[in-house]
Amino acid sequence: MIDLHYAPTPNGWKISIMLEELGLPYQVIPVNIRAGEQFRPEFLAISPNNRIPAIVDHQPSDGGGPFSVFETGAILMYLADKAGRFLSSELRARSNVIQWVMWQMSGLGPMLGQHGHFALYAAEKIPYAIERYRDETARLYGVLDRQLGKTGAYIAGDDYSIADIACFPWTMTHKAQGFTLDDYPHIKRWYATVRARPQVQAGLAIGKFVKEPFDEESRKNMFGQRAKELVEKK
Amino acid sequence: MIDLHYAPTPNGWKISIMLEELGLPYQVIPVNIRAGEQFRPEFLAISPNNRIPAIVDHQPSDGGGPFSVFETGAILMYLADKAGRFLSSELRARSNVIQWVMWQMSGLGPMLGQHGHFALYAAEKIPYAIERYRDETARLYGVLDRQLGKTGAYIAGDDYSIADIACFPWTMTHKAQGFTLDDYPHIKRWYATVRARPQVQAGLAIGKFVKEPFDEESRKNMFGQRAKELVEKK
Repeated sequence: MIDLHYAPTPNGWKISIMLEELGLPYQVIPVNIRAGEQFRPEFLAISPNNRIPAIVDHQPSDGGGPFSVFETGAILMYLADKAGRFLSSELRARSNVIQWVMWQMSGLGPMLGQHGHFALYAAEKIPYAIERYRDETARLYGVLDRQLGKTGAYIAGDDYSIADIACFPWTMTHKAQGFTLDDYPHIKRWYATVRARPQVQAGLAIGKFVKEPFDEESRKNMFGQRAKELVEKK
Repeated sequence: MIDLHYAPTPNGWKISIMLEELGLPYQVIPVNIRAGEQFRPEFLAISPNNRIPAIVDHQPSDGGGPFSVFETGAILMYLADKAGRFLSSELRARSNVIQWVMWQMSGLGPMLGQHGHFALYAAEKIPYAIERYRDETARLYGVLDRQLGKTGAYIAGDDYSIADIACFPWTMTHKAQGFTLDDYPHIKRWYATVRARPQVQAGLAIGKFVKEPFDEESRKNMFGQRAKELVEKK
């Protein structure tokens, strides 16, 4: 059994989709990030960065005790290697997948996250910041579109991989962030293909449980990044 | 021989340090990012995200033709596995290292990068953005300090690994970004240990070649992220 410490966000969806794709037995442990549950000491022990998602594998393949993994890129690699799927063991194919997972982790995720913050969530509207991250989001969509045009199939080549699973949930934010996939025909084609997978649908359906009010306290828990406050909470 | 397409930045230093640590033969191919050389089509073929560093390995271990790798996290993993160093093949130790490399790629790098942009480089000083990223930088330093306090040695455990090599160059920005390691005693201890490694010193010495003037054109090439401009440049 795998525990999935989870909230329904693009990063959370990566892992619920992956677990559905692999058909591994797992249980969802909701972490109400709006209520600040990510700051609890028992969660910190599993996820030292205080962020969801994280997993605990109760049957790791070395036969030892429970093993916890945080950071979605690392969780995807861990699960892919555990199951022997969606991450080739062949040198080049493997590195290609890892390169695009890293691109998602370092670029697509953080920068779309910043655009979402400044364009949608921040109480103060700051044109410079909105424009900075809108431009970077457009640049990243351009990079992805070129890559998908080159492969003609999935992000890292002919095969569906954890690079697709990592990127897909972030591209789901395109409408909310004011982008249209009509500007990115290769992404549009890929997006429809990935979205149609029953396992992706099942992963996205996980955890439609959190519909807490989005009030001042939840805003602070989600966007307040003061180290001092975090220390006080613990 | 490995070609290192390079500029002396925190991300560039990760790879020059790694190559020095491994003692692999390599040649530095300077990419003048202030002059916009990262937008050249021949560089794009190697680095589809238009960013430095990237490598081309002319002797990949599968015996085939040259293989290019972009994204520093992927380059570090590729080189570590090639040389069999700084990334264990044991399940848990390996995942621990990958988890902290992913943490660097998705958090420490991008967020310190945003703080650097708003606090140091942006022509317009925006208190909200500076505070947002200063708080997040402090939070991330806190996470790293706790982890180093827990291991008592290196980031992912007893052994020096690509997690240390990934994080170290970003922590080098602490002074410029207005932080002191006196607030983070475990980082301070680790920082001194890593910095003292001759291979780290050698890696940092690579490419003190770029001291171009930091003018309007270089500002545009480094910080302009408009997809349209990038397309026009190509």
